Amino acid sequence: MDYDAMFTAQLDTLRQDGNYRIFAELERRCGAFPRARSCDEAAPDEVTVWCSNDYLGMGQHPVVREAMKEAIDRCGAGAGGTRNISGTNHQHVQLEGELADLHGKEAALLFTSGYVSNWAALSTLGSRLPDAVILSDALNHASMIEGIRHSRARKVIWRHNDPEDLDRKLAALPANAPRIVAFESVYSMDGDICPMQEIVEVAEKHGAMTYLDEVHAVGLYGPRGGGISEREGLADRITLIEGTLGKAYGCMGGYVTGSAPLCDFIRSFASGFIFTTALPPAVAAGARASIRHLKQSDTERLRQRRQVARLRAALDARGIPHMDNPSHIIPVMIKDPVKCRMLADILMNDWGIYVQPINFPTVPKGTERLRFTPSPLHEDADIDHLVEALSVLWKQCAIAHAVA
Amino acid sequence: MDYDAMFTAQLDTLRQDGNYRIFAELERRCGAFPRARSCDEAAPDEVTVWCSNDYLGMGQHPVVREAMKEAIDRCGAGAGGTRNISGTNHQHVQLEGELADLHGKEAALLFTSGYVSNWAALSTLGSRLPDAVILSDALNHASMIEGIRHSRARKVIWRHNDPEDLDRKLAALPANAPRIVAFESVYSMDGDICPMQEIVEVAEKHGAMTYLDEVHAVGLYGPRGGGISEREGLADRITLIEGTLGKAYGCMGGYVTGSAPLCDFIRSFASGFIFTTALPPAVAAGARASIRHLKQSDTERLRQRRQVARLRAALDARGIPHMDNPSHIIPVMIKDPVKCRMLADILMNDWGIYVQPINFPTVPKGTERLRFTPSPLHEDADIDHLVEALSVLWKQCAIAHAVA
Repeated sequence: MDYDAMFTAQLDTLRQDGNYRIFAELERRCGAFPRARSCDEAAPDEVTVWCSNDYLGMGQHPVVREAMKEAIDRCGAGAGGTRNISGTNHQHVQLEGELADLHGKEAALLFTSGYVSNWAALSTLGSRLPDAVILSDALNHASMIEGIRHSRARKVIWRHNDPEDLDRKLAALPANAPRIVAFESVYSMDGDICPMQEIVEVAEKHGAMTYLDEVHAVGLYGPRGGGISEREGLADRITLIEGTLGKAYGCMGGYVTGSAPLCDFIRSFASGFIFTTALPPAVAAGARASIRHLKQSDTERLRQRRQVARLRAALDARGIPHMDNPSHIIPVMIKDPVKCRMLADILMNDWGIYVQPINFPTVPKGTERLRFTPSPLHEDADIDHLVEALSVLWKQCAIAHAVA
Repeated sequence: MDYDAMFTAQLDTLRQDGNYRIFAELERRCGAFPRARSCDEAAPDEVTVWCSNDYLGMGQHPVVREAMKEAIDRCGAGAGGTRNISGTNHQHVQLEGELADLHGKEAALLFTSGYVSNWAALSTLGSRLPDAVILSDALNHASMIEGIRHSRARKVIWRHNDPEDLDRKLAALPANAPRIVAFESVYSMDGDICPMQEIVEVAEKHGAMTYLDEVHAVGLYGPRGGGISEREGLADRITLIEGTLGKAYGCMGGYVTGSAPLCDFIRSFASGFIFTTALPPAVAAGARASIRHLKQSDTERLRQRRQVARLRAALDARGIPHMDNPSHIIPVMIKDPVKCRMLADILMNDWGIYVQPINFPTVPKGTERLRFTPSPLHEDADIDHLVEALSVLWKQCAIAHAVA
């Protein structure tokens, strides 16, 4: 059998639909974020990154880098094993304590990534709690969807950010079955924020547990960076808070926090936790330094908010439509995969602006977009340059439309 | 509903069966491997680690540490995004080239862990190739089992390391369906090695593709560390070789290698690849340095082989039974979870020897064991000390049996 031919046929379909992905190869430059070296021949040598999830630039922060380097010199590179078999390093235990404190929970459990934490936690809860039903927000992240799918538990999808729909769906379920309401605080692609208090109240009314993904919020919201649940004073009413160390904290890894029995349960039964090499101690040390810094420093958050507001105002002033939302994520809708890629290419090659075109399957077909994430490190001049570029492109599009 | 009570009830069952896991908290000491600081109050401050999967001690190697620290200073801590959205760093691309070269393949694809690489690759192949059948060795790792389960493809289990059984099972399947033969080279818990040539010949005869997990072999076998497939000269006849950067290479991460269309197919369709933050550039740089070192240096492999042989001979001399196998893994069977934990506790607390008891679900119930992995950094005196401790414990057990 010609397996390569099968692979190639499916890749060709992707290409024909404009959904074939081309990765931009970069070399980030410490001390110069959001600037990076581009390895792409068509692009300028230096580009400004406008789509990073290192939202606060913590990846280049001296406290993070020093903590990592110190741990490498003291403990070496890798963890040396799974958490169970020689891989639990002191840094993991310290970091789990830091995370439990961040969310005001009894315990925390580290994973190699946010994806794995969602997949492993939801698949374990759904498969090991007899007759469990998982109520999943319609726009939940792929990692949650795959975790639910893997659990083979009954799944009920409720309308995105709609507590009334959740209420109706919970009311239709048996009250003696474990029910898990799974949702996010900040949704990555539209940047909208869930009505957390209403969702929590509905779940409490029905005796359901709540599973909250805060990956696009931790570090960024709440007085200590504890996310939307901290900002709203709701963390103690959420059963499980999941987060990442790979976005605002600038490192890598994921985690869940909750009661001691809950974390111990997932620790003891989740295949994706048990059978994998632990995070390098240095990554855990760097993440912990980042969390500690953002627990006591508001500088990065305030500056980010200022730059987000500034980009929004500048887009408005030039009449460039962007999706309205209360977060740090600014989506500019293009609604076509080929145009989206074309605009991104022009921005990269002619303007030194790197923003990845966001196409299917990351967003539904027909909602392709450019997604901008201003950081505290983007200068006012960077914003002016970006808006100038978009403005020129928008005028060219308008002319193209008029001529066509 | 009292969810914590449900969690606690299942944890209590684990405890009653002797399968509740207690992690040993360590601080590895760079330059002093396999020595580590123990954070456990009952244990001596310093212990010798006898169960690490940092098989060659590359985690403390200067070339690895320097490469990591240099990358941290140049590029910062995290990757900043998924591979698609700003997260492809130059170090990832370089490492993928290094891995393709290691296995003599056209292309390679990095994942955040070996677990994720198996899970994502197998679930993608099984779900996206219409009517695919996955033929899985009976003792395949949890990550492969979960990947196959997630794919919902038809699964056929063949008898462990039995090419004749594989042949019969392939003969019973339709020749026009994609068939994927999934197996490992070195099996982690028994340390046995597959009859690779026979398996490859059977697969070729039936036109099936081969999926080979080399996580416990890369770095350790073959003249350049390319694993058993390199040692046997079979790499070019295997469709996909999967490996890890978290064991012999001393870092973290997983990968697959194969034809360009195969890697591009997984890159384009695997949820567990697409929707997750990329490895930190520094981890990729450290892993690459480690691979390059072990491509040209045999010192570590030769010294490891010597120490493995030495420990086996010393165990034989004292009449301590161990499972015979042709690899670097030395399992001493205990066959009871409570005794296994008890022996490990005595070794740790009285002798400063850390070996994790291996219980269910890592091995089947009734096959509990201590699993020793001698490294090039274990001195002859360490081996003598270990065998002395085991010998004393064995005599005590014999007395206990006689008295009972």
